[in-house]
Amino acid sequence: MPKKSRFLQTPVEPFAVEGGLTADQILARMERISFQGRNLATAQRVWHKMLEDDVTIFLGMAGALSAGGLRLVVAHLIANRYVDCLVSTGANLYHDLHETRGQRHFIGSPHSDDAALAEERIDRVYDTYADEEEFIGNDNWIADFAASLEPRPYTTREFLHRLGGHLWETTKRDGILTAAFRARVPIFCPAIGDSSIGMGLSQARQKRAGAGTIDIIGDIVESANLVIRRPRTSSVVLGGGTPKNFINQASVQAEFYSPEVGGHRYALQIVTDVPHFGGASGSSLEEAQSWGKLATDAASVSVQADATIALPILASALAISAPPLLARRKPPVFTLDSRVMTVDGQTVPSDRFEDVNEPAV
Amino acid sequence: MPKKSRFLQTPVEPFAVEGGLTADQILARMERISFQGRNLATAQRVWHKMLEDDVTIFLGMAGALSAGGLRLVVAHLIANRYVDCLVSTGANLYHDLHETRGQRHFIGSPHSDDAALAEERIDRVYDTYADEEEFIGNDNWIADFAASLEPRPYTTREFLHRLGGHLWETTKRDGILTAAFRARVPIFCPAIGDSSIGMGLSQARQKRAGAGTIDIIGDIVESANLVIRRPRTSSVVLGGGTPKNFINQASVQAEFYSPEVGGHRYALQIVTDVPHFGGASGSSLEEAQSWGKLATDAASVSVQADATIALPILASALAISAPPLLARRKPPVFTLDSRVMTVDGQTVPSDRFEDVNEPAV
Amino acid sequence: MPKKSRFLQTPVEPFAVEGGLTADQILARMERISFQGRNLATAQRVWHKMLEDDVTIFLGMAGALSAGGLRLVVAHLIANRYVDCLVSTGANLYHDLHETRGQRHFIGSPHSDDAALAEERIDRVYDTYADEEEFIGNDNWIADFAASLEPRPYTTREFLHRLGGHLWETTKRDGILTAAFRARVPIFCPAIGDSSIGMGLSQARQKRAGAGTIDIIGDIVESANLVIRRPRTSSVVLGGGTPKNFINQASVQAEFYSPEVGGHRYALQIVTDVPHFGGASGSSLEEAQSWGKLATDAASVSVQADATIALPILASALAISAPPLLARRKPPVFTLDSRVMTVDGQTVPSDRFEDVNEPAV
Amino acid sequence: MPKKSRFLQTPVEPFAVEGGLTADQILARMERISFQGRNLATAQRVWHKMLEDDVTIFLGMAGALSAGGLRLVVAHLIANRYVDCLVSTGANLYHDLHETRGQRHFIGSPHSDDAALAEERIDRVYDTYADEEEFIGNDNWIADFAASLEPRPYTTREFLHRLGGHLWETTKRDGILTAAFRARVPIFCPAIGDSSIGMGLSQARQKRAGAGTIDIIGDIVESANLVIRRPRTSSVVLGGGTPKNFINQASVQAEFYSPEVGGHRYALQIVTDVPHFGGASGSSLEEAQSWGKLATDAASVSVQADATIALPILASALAISAPPLLARRKPPVFTLDSRVMTVDGQTVPSDRFEDVNEPAV
Repeated sequence: MPKKSRFLQTPVEPFAVEGGLTADQILARMERISFQGRNLATAQRVWHKMLEDDVTIFLGMAGALSAGGLRLVVAHLIANRYVDCLVSTGANLYHDLHETRGQRHFIGSPHSDDAALAEERIDRVYDTYADEEEFIGNDNWIADFAASLEPRPYTTREFLHRLGGHLWETTKRDGILTAAFRARVPIFCPAIGDSSIGMGLSQARQKRAGAGTIDIIGDIVESANLVIRRPRTSSVVLGGGTPKNFINQASVQAEFYSPEVGGHRYALQIVTDVPHFGGASGSSLEEAQSWGKLATDAASVSVQADATIALPILASALAISAPPLLARRKPPVFTLDSRVMTVDGQTVPSDRFEDVNEPAV
Repeated sequence: MPKKSRFLQTPVEPFAVEGGLTADQILARMERISFQGRNLATAQRVWHKMLEDDVTIFLGMAGALSAGGLRLVVAHLIANRYVDCLVSTGANLYHDLHETRGQRHFIGSPHSDDAALAEERIDRVYDTYADEEEFIGNDNWIADFAASLEPRPYTTREFLHRLGGHLWETTKRDGILTAAFRARVPIFCPAIGDSSIGMGLSQARQKRAGAGTIDIIGDIVESANLVIRRPRTSSVVLGGGTPKNFINQASVQAEFYSPEVGGHRYALQIVTDVPHFGGASGSSLEEAQSWGKLATDAASVSVQADATIALPILASALAISAPPLLARRKPPVFTLDSRVMTVDGQTVPSDRFEDVNEPAV
Repeated sequence: MPKKSRFLQTPVEPFAVEGGLTADQILARMERISFQGRNLATAQRVWHKMLEDDVTIFLGMAGALSAGGLRLVVAHLIANRYVDCLVSTGANLYHDLHETRGQRHFIGSPHSDDAALAEERIDRVYDTYADEEEFIGNDNWIADFAASLEPRPYTTREFLHRLGGHLWETTKRDGILTAAFRARVPIFCPAIGDSSIGMGLSQARQKRAGAGTIDIIGDIVESANLVIRRPRTSSVVLGGGTPKNFINQASVQAEFYSPEVGGHRYALQIVTDVPHFGGASGSSLEEAQSWGKLATDAASVSVQADATIALPILASALAISAPPLLARRKPPVFTLDSRVMTVDGQTVPSDRFEDVNEPAV
Repeated sequence: MPKKSRFLQTPVEPFAVEGGLTADQILARMERISFQGRNLATAQRVWHKMLEDDVTIFLGMAGALSAGGLRLVVAHLIANRYVDCLVSTGANLYHDLHETRGQRHFIGSPHSDDAALAEERIDRVYDTYADEEEFIGNDNWIADFAASLEPRPYTTREFLHRLGGHLWETTKRDGILTAAFRARVPIFCPAIGDSSIGMGLSQARQKRAGAGTIDIIGDIVESANLVIRRPRTSSVVLGGGTPKNFINQASVQAEFYSPEVGGHRYALQIVTDVPHFGGASGSSLEEAQSWGKLATDAASVSVQADATIALPILASALAISAPPLLARRKPPVFTLDSRVMTVDGQTVPSDRFEDVNEPAV
């Protein structure tokens, strides 16, 4: 029956348990099982393809990943240039800063007495606690730093690079902000106004008139210009949220100005939201193709899983399988320490879109 | 057995089917069933309490509610002052503007051929389509409007009020932005940089140097000052996302400056996310108490449901039960058409926090 | 643009709030919105089609619907012959019996102290409580009844019909079991061994040797024969579980013996599970087509919602819109009070499959 | 601040990526992160405790785990006596038998054309395909085997042990049924009537009058008697469904007859369902305490994850960490090849409950 065999080509290979397997060996055995296990294994293959190809890799990060113990995984991905540009919620950067400043989050319970916690000024994130008074200290630290800057508008990319630099100088500790500073990887934070970093910035105005001014629209221009400069892109998304859309938006916006942009070449998302309620966080990668956010022939995979399970496994596997690819990789080179960023020596302005149909720069 | 009876006080009353029931009669019968049906019925009661008390009611809105057919429900809630301040994602305002400008979204299928849609330049949101070329027209319309404004920083509150005004003058059609303009209800959009409204603003820079500048940090100050001015607040959240956190953040930030602020007095959320992955969208209202976002004695309810089911029912029920409460209600009065907003005649600055311990203003 | 218009035919019509709307008017307005709201409205249309056509309508019921306050909705659907055959978990029948016997479930909290409840012998189902001692009474009542029957194997269909009859004679109260008894609607319970009804049956053996014997395989034969007799079928599923599969299995099994069987003509499911983990409860209706469980041209809809929200609305709407259809409907007529059931006067044996290719009966 | 420190004792330790880590090293690093990652790590610790203690370990298995590539993981857990008694859906045993008979499932796509699959008689389980004609062959094979048995009622435990034996003799291949046969681990299948194994049994009646008779109520008695004999138990649940409840029911039922039974001492569940819709599959382990299903001081953990991700990791880790515990373990010894099962030499009848208050046996 030749027609039937068209569908029945690759058998499921039951996972065989064996002691001593490393993460990439486990994932290799999961490629031939089903459901989300297969998808997680596929995620490693898709990431390999990104690293092998000449693409700018965006990493989006939403959900309480930093408070939840994944900030050094993200720092590792940045430091080793598994990714080239981070788009994050403010909270993830804030909770990263909290720990990089030497403070901690704590193991707690989801069945807490929240009134008792409130009385002790302990803030809860599901099963994780933090000391609210330390948070107040962070806000003030951020406000002091922001007030120390020349009072003019800053894109989040510029502000966060400077913040990362200040944090590195102060602490010499690893974390997302410090790793991005040191690896010169840009960070965008489209919803910075909805986070404690934003709160710190707002408090800077109490310290110095005109301080704490963020040019959020400049981020849109700059991120699109980055795609215009390097039209081949990829998207790795953890948890959806504003980062997921911002990465796609950069691609869509860039396409207005450059015919070379055609959506991400590769896409990988690890999400817990579902498509059928219509929200962007859970939207499928297929849907992204209709918008031109993703090339219609892109290699892509969506993993329905909590990142606190999926990412440690995936990063541990990549730590074994990816180093040769990373060694061959020629990632984009950024300068980030001034108002205008450059990529591979070319400027990426935030005040107007580059039109590649005209001679650029 | 007196101890047992402590737990077994109110029997479940099975829902009795009857033809001709209105939405509030249906919800009344759902108060004594279980699970999310009970929660939806409770949501009506909690909203009643908000309307009866002297509180500022924030409405947060995330997810594709405007594209999905709920924009006139939200406009209705604004026009009739069920709510006093809207916090929205940019997408919901954008898709509202799309329809207010006379364009439509269309019934589609979640099982579409997305490559075919991409070829026709049709954008898909789960089971809903829109014409990408019309979107490009909207972006340009927004860019033109933004370029027509005096080039200076605008809070989203000021910008969106002006945008709503321009939309009303141009179209005289109902929608979220126009209803908020006419009812003088402020709108904050903390992630405006992550939306097509942001894209329109970014394109304004192409038309006029210095245009499209948004003071996202000013929004934080202004929203907190609003809570300092009127410390009794409530939160109604549809779908989580940045609006949910921004509303809570206003409360937390205000508390730094005023001892009278003690978290929302009432809270109601209709969400599809779950708490156990740690993300803010799905976080429980109990958890919010640990942060002081919600008063520990607040009346609150969380409904796990798609807003496209829950909100039409709830709004239809409130349209019957709430008018007497709305008639008695004395909602805050805003002026929104300039850089500094006022509430009940008092200024609400965006450049510094009001400290109620010092004589304010 | 003629090609584009192929996709953009029916605009989304924003839901317009109005006081005094009945459930069917609300659903009519939800047909033109998106996401699960649209699906719930479509569910009413699909049910209308079932009632208009000459099909046997199976209702599957899983999840704690009876404890949660929906037992009289299901009883109403049975009594008014919206459905012709119920397939249920044992728990739903047990909690129905509990209330029909005059006992109650109680409004509780999901944040209970379960150790305290355990001490008081109160059993919790999420936010609902029941008295464990009353449950022990029920078990014994079932055991006594089972021990009173002639000791021979009973299909669940026969046993549950007899149990419903005994319950009706004893209580004269409405409920699922009593409604099904009175309307002569068969009930299958494929996982009766996994429920407190099964526990009661097991305790019958303590009272009388050989009592409590259930012919679960006979149920398979009988349900398939029912489909062979009446090959045009429909499926309404609440919550997935064993009932969902059992209804499909009857169709698949019948097809082995009759070429006239071609899968359900209509299907409607209200579920909270999702497809992407591979479980049957969340499986899509599209997937069911590959198995021949559902005709490939079937009118069908899947609603992702808690039944405690969706079913009260849907049943209230149908109570207005469906009576003319019910009046015209000629549902199958069953006799259920003996070992061999009949439908429309023909026997439906449980000991062998009817082969329609041979002369039947 | 001594009170605060009560809550803030154990810091979250960010996961540190390192190449070459084995699964148990990865899980060890996940114990100090948050959310479901921490829960998965805790699952290993809880399983260790079960193995160290003198408890009968039940494994419940629902969802398409066998079709999805996890059948050899479960076989491994059985063969190495990580567990002592399996409770499964029929589908998992059927898809296991399918492969043990030398046939395969195949890698497919969730975006299939189901009408095309139906035409080719290919059945889809989300992203996995199987040949329907092979399934028909299996059904017939099961029917032949069932018809070969002496026609009398069989508990699923006895029938499945015999089926496993026949399968082993025929194929000499590893799988769940054959591993359980060889390790003399009992299998209960409370919803066997809702599965293709049930369909095969029903077809046995076509081959031989009186064949295919299953004593599902006997399973209840036998499983409860097993707990009465060995009152210290543990529960490992994959996916919820009927197995989850059946394992708990054995405990609850046993408690009626023996004061020594006090709920499971340890419990571990890997589920994707959630508690807030009231269904048993997603119910919390806390709720189980109110029913006495779980001891109020039990060590327990609930992991919200797809088993196709969680189980390969967990089993790979246990393959490293558990062998010393397995070597010291003294699991219960069963005889399973006749109508009455024994455990540790004592009979476990299926026709009446053992009352430990009277002298047993």
